[in-house]
Amino acid sequence: MEQKILLTECSDAVGLIARVTNICFKYNLNIVHQDQFASEDDKRFFMRTVLSGIFANEENFLSEIKSVLPADAIVRLNGRQKRRLAVLVTKEAHCLGDILMKAYSGALNADIVMVAGNYPDLGDLAARFDIPFHLVSHEGISREEQEERMCQVIDDCNPDYVVLAKYMRILSPRMVGHYPLGKLINIHHSFLPAFIGAKPYQQAFDRGVKIIGATAHFVTNNLDEGPIIEQDVIKVNHNYDAADMAKAGRDVERLVLMRALSRVLDDKVFIHGNKTVVF
Amino acid sequence: MEQKILLTECSDAVGLIARVTNICFKYNLNIVHQDQFASEDDKRFFMRTVLSGIFANEENFLSEIKSVLPADAIVRLNGRQKRRLAVLVTKEAHCLGDILMKAYSGALNADIVMVAGNYPDLGDLAARFDIPFHLVSHEGISREEQEERMCQVIDDCNPDYVVLAKYMRILSPRMVGHYPLGKLINIHHSFLPAFIGAKPYQQAFDRGVKIIGATAHFVTNNLDEGPIIEQDVIKVNHNYDAADMAKAGRDVERLVLMRALSRVLDDKVFIHGNKTVVF
Amino acid sequence: MEQKILLTECSDAVGLIARVTNICFKYNLNIVHQDQFASEDDKRFFMRTVLSGIFANEENFLSEIKSVLPADAIVRLNGRQKRRLAVLVTKEAHCLGDILMKAYSGALNADIVMVAGNYPDLGDLAARFDIPFHLVSHEGISREEQEERMCQVIDDCNPDYVVLAKYMRILSPRMVGHYPLGKLINIHHSFLPAFIGAKPYQQAFDRGVKIIGATAHFVTNNLDEGPIIEQDVIKVNHNYDAADMAKAGRDVERLVLMRALSRVLDDKVFIHGNKTVVF
Amino acid sequence: MEQKILLTECSDAVGLIARVTNICFKYNLNIVHQDQFASEDDKRFFMRTVLSGIFANEENFLSEIKSVLPADAIVRLNGRQKRRLAVLVTKEAHCLGDILMKAYSGALNADIVMVAGNYPDLGDLAARFDIPFHLVSHEGISREEQEERMCQVIDDCNPDYVVLAKYMRILSPRMVGHYPLGKLINIHHSFLPAFIGAKPYQQAFDRGVKIIGATAHFVTNNLDEGPIIEQDVIKVNHNYDAADMAKAGRDVERLVLMRALSRVLDDKVFIHGNKTVVF
Repeated sequence: MEQKILLTECSDAVGLIARVTNICFKYNLNIVHQDQFASEDDKRFFMRTVLSGIFANEENFLSEIKSVLPADAIVRLNGRQKRRLAVLVTKEAHCLGDILMKAYSGALNADIVMVAGNYPDLGDLAARFDIPFHLVSHEGISREEQEERMCQVIDDCNPDYVVLAKYMRILSPRMVGHYPLGKLINIHHSFLPAFIGAKPYQQAFDRGVKIIGATAHFVTNNLDEGPIIEQDVIKVNHNYDAADMAKAGRDVERLVLMRALSRVLDDKVFIHGNKTVVF
Repeated sequence: MEQKILLTECSDAVGLIARVTNICFKYNLNIVHQDQFASEDDKRFFMRTVLSGIFANEENFLSEIKSVLPADAIVRLNGRQKRRLAVLVTKEAHCLGDILMKAYSGALNADIVMVAGNYPDLGDLAARFDIPFHLVSHEGISREEQEERMCQVIDDCNPDYVVLAKYMRILSPRMVGHYPLGKLINIHHSFLPAFIGAKPYQQAFDRGVKIIGATAHFVTNNLDEGPIIEQDVIKVNHNYDAADMAKAGRDVERLVLMRALSRVLDDKVFIHGNKTVVF
Repeated sequence: MEQKILLTECSDAVGLIARVTNICFKYNLNIVHQDQFASEDDKRFFMRTVLSGIFANEENFLSEIKSVLPADAIVRLNGRQKRRLAVLVTKEAHCLGDILMKAYSGALNADIVMVAGNYPDLGDLAARFDIPFHLVSHEGISREEQEERMCQVIDDCNPDYVVLAKYMRILSPRMVGHYPLGKLINIHHSFLPAFIGAKPYQQAFDRGVKIIGATAHFVTNNLDEGPIIEQDVIKVNHNYDAADMAKAGRDVERLVLMRALSRVLDDKVFIHGNKTVVF
Repeated sequence: MEQKILLTECSDAVGLIARVTNICFKYNLNIVHQDQFASEDDKRFFMRTVLSGIFANEENFLSEIKSVLPADAIVRLNGRQKRRLAVLVTKEAHCLGDILMKAYSGALNADIVMVAGNYPDLGDLAARFDIPFHLVSHEGISREEQEERMCQVIDDCNPDYVVLAKYMRILSPRMVGHYPLGKLINIHHSFLPAFIGAKPYQQAFDRGVKIIGATAHFVTNNLDEGPIIEQDVIKVNHNYDAADMAKAGRDVERLVLMRALSRVLDDKVFIHGNKTVVF
C-alpha cells in the first residue's frame, strides 16, 4: 500500500469535503489523515488528504475530482519522494549547517542538490557533505548579471524549492518573478518593534528588546513581506550585547527555518493570498 | 443561521468522512470547520464538525448519520449554549480566581453554578462574584460521608462539568464512579522527574529541577493518571526556593487549567481510551 | 531580622562592588542576594542588594555609601512594604482582573488604591473587590481637561505606580511629563511585523502572522516606545480570525503585564536610558 | 587587556563579596560581570566573576583570595581558551551533529578531540569534520572490558569534558567513579509523568502525553539522576505517533544539550550537592 497526498484548493462551496471524499472512497483509497480549512472572508477552501491504497489510475482520479469542484480548483496528488533543494547562502553557517545535517541524518525529506553563495566561505562546509557549491560572486558585476548567473546555476539543477539560508542579498523583482510564488523560501530576523535598515541587532540592542524573533516566509517582491510560514522568538535580557543578540537570533533563525521547511516538504503549506494555511 | 457542533466517534472504516458530510450536505448544513483523527493502533475515528444552517429536524439528521456509521458510533449535536460548571476547591485561590474572572468577563463559555470547598477560605471570593458557595468540611466525619455530601451538593446544581480547581482531596473510586468519565476535570502540578508523596515543591527544590509543569486531565480511579487534556511548564532556576517554585507552579497551573477548560467547553476534546484527542 | 533592598546606580568605576559591600559588612548587614550589571557602551553601573540585619541608622549608612561612589550615584534603600497602585482602564477587563485577583490573593506586593476609567464599564468589577472607581469620561470635554481631571484623581490617592491596564487613550506629553519616568507602566500588543494605526488585530489577521506579542513598558512621550520591561508572544495560526487573535492577545497581555508589575514591585527594574535592566 | 573568570565556592559568611572584590581591586582587575548565589538551606556561597586586566601574578592573587575565605573554599581562575571535548555516541546523529556543527562554525568554545561509539554508524559523520572516531564495541566482551577500553580511549585524549551524546549504555559505578563529578555530561529524554524501562516514546504515546522533555545533567551513579543543568520541553499532540514523538524528542534533546554545554564551557555551572547553580 502506497501513501500519497491529495492537495485541493478552490472557492468554498457546500459539500466540497463530501464530493472529494466520495471519489476517494470510490477509488478504494483510504483517508489516513485529512485537514481542511475554509476562509470566512474570501471564501477559499483548502484541503490536505493523506491517502493510502493502490494508485492505479491517477489521471482519471484527478480529473474526476476536478469535475466535482468549482472551476478554479487546483488539485495535486503528490508522492512522498524526496524533494530537490537548492540552498543560497552568504557567510553564515548556522542555517545551512542545520539543513545539511538534517538531510544527512535522514530527518529531512529532501536532497540538497546544490549550495550557491555570493562568497566562497561556505564552500568547505558543503564539500564536507559532498554537495556541489557554486560561487556566484556579486563583485565587479552588475546586480542584473549576478542574478542571471545565480538563476542559471539554480535552474541547471532543477530544484523543487530554493532556500535562502541567510543569503544576504535583496532579490530584484526580476529574479523573484523568474520563479513561481512558493518556490523561494526565506528566513529573516524579526523584532518587536520592527527595525528597518542596517545592523538590526545593534538597533535591537539599542532599543533594549526582551525578545528576538525569526520569520520564515515565501519570497515576493515586497522585501521580507511574503506569506509567513512560521515564526518564533527567543528571550534575551540586558546582559546580551548586540553580538549576543545576533547569536541568540541565529539559534531561533535555524529552528524557524527548519520547521517551515519541514512543513513545506510535508506538503502542509498552502499559500492563501499574502498569508499561508499551515496544517 | 445557527451554528452547532457535530461530534462523531466510532470504529474507523473507509469512507466515514464522505458518509457524514454527504448527509450534512443533504440537510443543507454548511461545514464551517471540520477536524478528524483516526488512530492507527486501535482504529478509532473521531470527528468534530462545526455546522451552520437551519437545524429543523435534528432527530432525523442524527439517526440518518448513525445509520451510515459502524454500530458502535456515538454521535452528538451540541449547541453553543453556555455549560454549567461546578468548581471544587480547598484553600488556594489562583485557579478559582481565573475561572471566575474569565466567566465574569465573558471569555469562558460557561456559567459557574456553584463553588464547593472543604474549607471555608474561598467562600468570600465566590461571593464577590455572586456564586453560591458550599462548605463541605471533611472534619469530624468519614471520607465516605464527606463525599456523599459533596456529591449531593454537586448533583443538586446539575452541572455539565465538575472542575477540581486545587481541590486537595483524593477522590474515592466510589465518588469517581458516581460520574461519567469526562465530567470531572482536575489540575495538578507535574515534575521532571516525577515526585510522589507529600510536599512536591520541596522535593522539586531538593532535586534542583529547572522546569515545573502542570497537567490538566479527566479524573479516573488512577490518581493523577486520567486522560491528559493539556500540559505545560514554566522555567525555574537555583534562585527559586520551594515557596518560589510553588508560586511559579500556581501560574502554570491556572494557565493549563484554563486552556484545558476552554477546549472542553468548545467540544474540542474527545476521550480515547486513557488518552485524549484535542482538536 | 529585617530585609531591605539597596538599589545603587552610578557611573561605572573599578571597585564599586567592593566599596558598597564593605560598608554593608561594616554595618553588620548580611547580603542575602545581589545582582549587578555594568553596561559596556555607556559605562553605567546598576546593583540590587537584598540585605538582612538591623537597620538602625539608615541615614548614616546611605550617606557613607554615597561617599564612596561617583558623584552621580543614586542610592535607595527600600523596605518590603506594599506599594500603592492606581490602575487606569477603559473597557477591557482582562488586565485589571488579573491585578485585582493577584492583589486579593496576596500574590502581588501591592495595594490597589484606585481604579479610574474613561468609561464606566469596569466600575462593577472594581467594586466587587472594594476598590474605589472613578469615572473620568473624555466625552464633551477637551483632552486637556480630561487629563487634568485624571491627574487629579490619581494624585489624590498618592500612588507609587500608575498602571495603564488597557487604558485606550494616548497620553499627552503634558500628562506624561506630570509624572517622573518609571511611575507610569503600560501594556500593549506587539506584532511581527509591527502594525501602525487602528484595528491592529485585523491587520495582524490580514497579514497572516503566526505569533502575537505583548510589551510592558514605562511610558515616555514616544508612544509605545518607552523602556521595555517585559515581552512575550503566543502562537496563532490560520484558524484564528481577527477576534480569536484579539482573544489570544488578551491572554499574553495580562501575563506580560503581571510579570512586569511583579518585577517592578520587587525593585528588580532599573531604567537605563531608553532601556531597562531587569534582575 | 585579558579576560579571565574567577570561580569561588565556599561556606557562606558575612562579607564574602567584599573580601573577594577588594582583592580584585587591589590587583587592578576590573569586574566586567559578576554573579553570586548563597543557598539558604545549607549555607553555600558561589560566585562567578569575569575579570579584565593584566594577570601578572596569578598564584599570589589566588592565595590572597583563599586567605580571606573560609577554609573549605575552592577558588579557580580560568582563561577563555577552548576546552577539549570527547563525545560518546551510539547510533543517533542529532546531538553529535549539533556539537560538530557548532564547533565547526566557531559557536562553541571547544575543540572536539575525539568521538567514540559502541557502534560504527557515526564514524562517517565524525570523519567529515576531521575528528578521530574510535569504535569501542560492546559485542563479545564483558561490560567491564568494554568500559576499560572506552576509558582508555577517553583518557588518551585528555578531555576536559566527556559528553554522552545519546550514548545508549548505562555506565557502571566503576566507570562513573573513574572521573571527577562534573566531567561527564549526559542528555536524556524526560516525560510527565516519568516512564521507566524500555521504549519510553512508546510509553509516552500510550499515555497520551502533550509535552516531551529533555534533561541535561552531570552523571552520577544514580542513573539519570545527577545534578540537572538544563531542561526544556516540546509540545506534541494526538497526531504524533511514537516515531513522531521520538523525532520531536530528538529536537528538544539537541537544544537542551547544546544549552547545557554552552553554559558549562562558559564556566557558568557550579555543582551544589545534587543540584546545580547555573549563572
